[in-house]
Amino acid sequence: MNISMTEQIRFISEILTKAGITYSDSQLVAKSLTLANLRGVDSHGILRLPVYAKRIKLGLMDKQDKIKVIKEDNVSAIIDGSNYIGQIVGRKATEKAIEKASQNTISMVLAKNSNHFGEAAEYSMMIAENNMIGIVASNTTPLMPPTGGIGKILGTNPLSISFPAGEYNIVTLDMALSSVAMGKVLYADSNNMNIPNGWGIDKDGNNTTNPKDVLNGGYLLPAAGPKGYGLALAIEVLTAVLTNSSVSKEVKSIYQYDEKNEISQAFIAINIDSFIDKVNYNERVETLVKYIKECPTAYGVSKIYLPGEIELETYNKRLLNGININDELSKQLEQLAKKLEVEPLNPIN
Amino acid sequence: MNISMTEQIRFISEILTKAGITYSDSQLVAKSLTLANLRGVDSHGILRLPVYAKRIKLGLMDKQDKIKVIKEDNVSAIIDGSNYIGQIVGRKATEKAIEKASQNTISMVLAKNSNHFGEAAEYSMMIAENNMIGIVASNTTPLMPPTGGIGKILGTNPLSISFPAGEYNIVTLDMALSSVAMGKVLYADSNNMNIPNGWGIDKDGNNTTNPKDVLNGGYLLPAAGPKGYGLALAIEVLTAVLTNSSVSKEVKSIYQYDEKNEISQAFIAINIDSFIDKVNYNERVETLVKYIKECPTAYGVSKIYLPGEIELETYNKRLLNGININDELSKQLEQLAKKLEVEPLNPIN
Repeated sequence: MNISMTEQIRFISEILTKAGITYSDSQLVAKSLTLANLRGVDSHGILRLPVYAKRIKLGLMDKQDKIKVIKEDNVSAIIDGSNYIGQIVGRKATEKAIEKASQNTISMVLAKNSNHFGEAAEYSMMIAENNMIGIVASNTTPLMPPTGGIGKILGTNPLSISFPAGEYNIVTLDMALSSVAMGKVLYADSNNMNIPNGWGIDKDGNNTTNPKDVLNGGYLLPAAGPKGYGLALAIEVLTAVLTNSSVSKEVKSIYQYDEKNEISQAFIAINIDSFIDKVNYNERVETLVKYIKECPTAYGVSKIYLPGEIELETYNKRLLNGININDELSKQLEQLAKKLEVEPLNPIN
Repeated sequence: MNISMTEQIRFISEILTKAGITYSDSQLVAKSLTLANLRGVDSHGILRLPVYAKRIKLGLMDKQDKIKVIKEDNVSAIIDGSNYIGQIVGRKATEKAIEKASQNTISMVLAKNSNHFGEAAEYSMMIAENNMIGIVASNTTPLMPPTGGIGKILGTNPLSISFPAGEYNIVTLDMALSSVAMGKVLYADSNNMNIPNGWGIDKDGNNTTNPKDVLNGGYLLPAAGPKGYGLALAIEVLTAVLTNSSVSKEVKSIYQYDEKNEISQAFIAINIDSFIDKVNYNERVETLVKYIKECPTAYGVSKIYLPGEIELETYNKRLLNGININDELSKQLEQLAKKLEVEPLNPIN
């Protein structure tokens, strides 16, 4: 079924309100999940709602905002998310980072005891909308081995960087540090396709092009091998080590319903005005983007995309056509609506 | 021939002094290039000396230190490298970043009008030696296309991150944002081997496993495709755009002897003490590293390496056994010594 943006926000907000979240916070979370769906990043969209609701119900995610600042100076802060919804923790940390960088050029705000905060891009874009460069990262439940290993030691630790780009609006890189998302391995498997070397290994650590080897006890590999491994490790230090929090195997899965998640996140803001005036910045960044845009395309490629541009195109399409929700998820959401006595999602067509 | 560390430093320093550099700066550059060789990163070692000497002689790299600070506040600065040797620019920028972060938690120092500064790792390690997390990046002459393109638009823009790791000393990631170094493609070609998909494309942008396709008008690809492309672009913004400097195709090659290089660099220091006390930091970082070190190894792998650990092992070996210089480079260095009336390199054996 296809759902409009406003209808999806209405639905998520009502579910979360019934689960015990304040109306205003439920609206923020609803908009976050819906923004991800509109941008085509369905893995961070309404798909997560039943998980959030279940974790709140089981007391694994707090329903009250007890977020507090536990350390602070002119350019930095550590926020204790107090196990509240990650989107609210993320938003508060981002606002603090923006405020500090607007006064003191650079800032780094860290959050501990946080939860899944949706797309890292949401926060780096908020920073870039304030004429700053935003760098946002999170640690996550470990899924990947270090190079040469077999075992789940490092999270796919997403990293997002956004910067204003003059007439090109905002450019947003948002990447996980795994070679690919597990969804792509599943897709290859269900279509009897091979996967390229470098995506994953089998349970003994052998390279493989058979998706079944990865799915049956194997592992996703870090992006670009030791490079992704090193970056994932660095993000673990910047987020969890600096906040004296859970690292690596200590970070629980969002799908494991017996312990809190204990995610850590980092939010860096760099105030462009402190380095260069707007006219010169725009001239430089637009020149750079033009060089990229004007690059001749490879055979079969229609245009060069900037980081985040595909998501922007999808956003514009889905804003018109609605968000598609598959049958399985529809059913889950229907059950959730019934349980919490919320009016089910009304499809567009 | 094999050269000892002290002999190589003596030689490089004398060459640079004869080229017009002060003795103390020539020593710093000599130590930088020699450190790279000791660490096994020969691409940033004594191999570069004839290039530096030639650029100084042609007036394409300045022989006088006119480095000046052109913008500064408590946590940031822009340094005009005045086209002096990149190692001295890098060292001054790094010292300034450390000084600012030691007083104000975080700092970002940018350098413009710089040159090749050796290994980015040299500076991130300097920062980490001061109990800080160091993040260092540089733009470079463009070599890679953006994803989907054919053309040299983005540099391989190295990124290095170092952090103290308690009993594990300092962990240092240093990566270029290309899939691999061009040297690996050359090696495959000269050994009649195929290259994996993802390393490069042919001149029309087709994927290829034939190294000749990459070498004959083709292109190296960014590491992990759009991820490396996005990171290389972000580094271009953080270094060159913020300093109002040359971007992308405007950055000249070090091997093109008609214009100055115009490299931009970024040096970020994050003071660990401002976030967490040393005892807790060490406990957390050592725990994290232990999880990695204790990860079972894949078939045929003897141990899990930390980022930078291979370089450290090589360093210890070469400190004992000397630095090997191949015949072609030996010849070049001999000619250079003759031209500048410097005592040639004396091999160990």
